[in-house]
Amino acid sequence: MCEANAYMVEDGNEHLIMESVDTVEPEGADLWRLVNIFGEQKSLRGHIKGLNLVDHKILFQAPDNG
Amino acid sequence: MCEANAYMVEDGNEHLIMESVDTVEPEGADLWRLVNIFGEQKSLRGHIKGLNLVDHKILFQAPDNG
Repeated sequence: MCEANAYMVEDGNEHLIMESVDTVEPEGADLWRLVNIFGEQKSLRGHIKGLNLVDHKILFQAPDNG
Repeated sequence: MCEANAYMVEDGNEHLIMESVDTVEPEGADLWRLVNIFGEQKSLRGHIKGLNLVDHKILFQAPDNG
């Protein structure tokens, strides 16, 4: 299986948000819906900082707070 | 290997942009750098419409032209 783990990067540290993510879809500005291979869903606020698929990583960054 | 293929979605059709993508990183507003497992690079303008990792798909959509 080729799912990845989603992390929120804060202060250079990667915090695991969800494992075995299959789909990521935008739900709005800076809002993403993650669904893993078990059908679990999570909404996440931030933007995509990068994908490293060979490393099974989806990196998010918190939105800039005004 | 768990890389994915990048597609641009236009009029509901998926046009293959790059195969075997490993990393995707933002280069600016609506600008992404793709690097595949062979080290080839491509810059792509648009936003991420969705990831379907089990299907090995990264879907982009062209930016809204004002």
